[in-house]
Amino acid sequence: MDSITMLGLAAGALTTASFLPQVIKTWRTRSTKDISLGMFVAFCAGICLWAVYGFLIHSLPVIITNVITFILASIILALKIRHG
Amino acid sequence: MDSITMLGLAAGALTTASFLPQVIKTWRTRSTKDISLGMFVAFCAGICLWAVYGFLIHSLPVIITNVITFILASIILALKIRHG
Repeated sequence: MDSITMLGLAAGALTTASFLPQVIKTWRTRSTKDISLGMFVAFCAGICLWAVYGFLIHSLPVIITNVITFILASIILALKIRHG
Repeated sequence: MDSITMLGLAAGALTTASFLPQVIKTWRTRSTKDISLGMFVAFCAGICLWAVYGFLIHSLPVIITNVITFILASIILALKIRHG
């Protein structure tokens, strides 16, 4: 694996992992008052397009990280809709 | 501009714009209790790496959207640190 792909995977690991503390916090507190519904609806839609874009430009980091980020952001969105 | 780049820009427009409602909500309410500090610290760091990665793979959508997203996410992070 070349160094550019490794940099992309490091970037993806950080941005994807960043959603974990928010998932854990929201799951524990069930409190979503300060989280914007609009943000997570637009974000989940955009992340889907990013995954398709990654596929089309053959970028493994863009594909992998957006698929995992979509799962995490969807959990936050679902908690917001349920406890909003 | 080719259709793949346009798809990438559409994806970037969505994920970048998604931070706007969160910035507006947090700016207005000054309430950041439900927002995870860990998320926005890791996210801002990762977004910086994504911009560098975009530069190295010559992807205009990855560069542009990550620079703008970094600015928006930094505002949320600053509000979280100030009103945390």
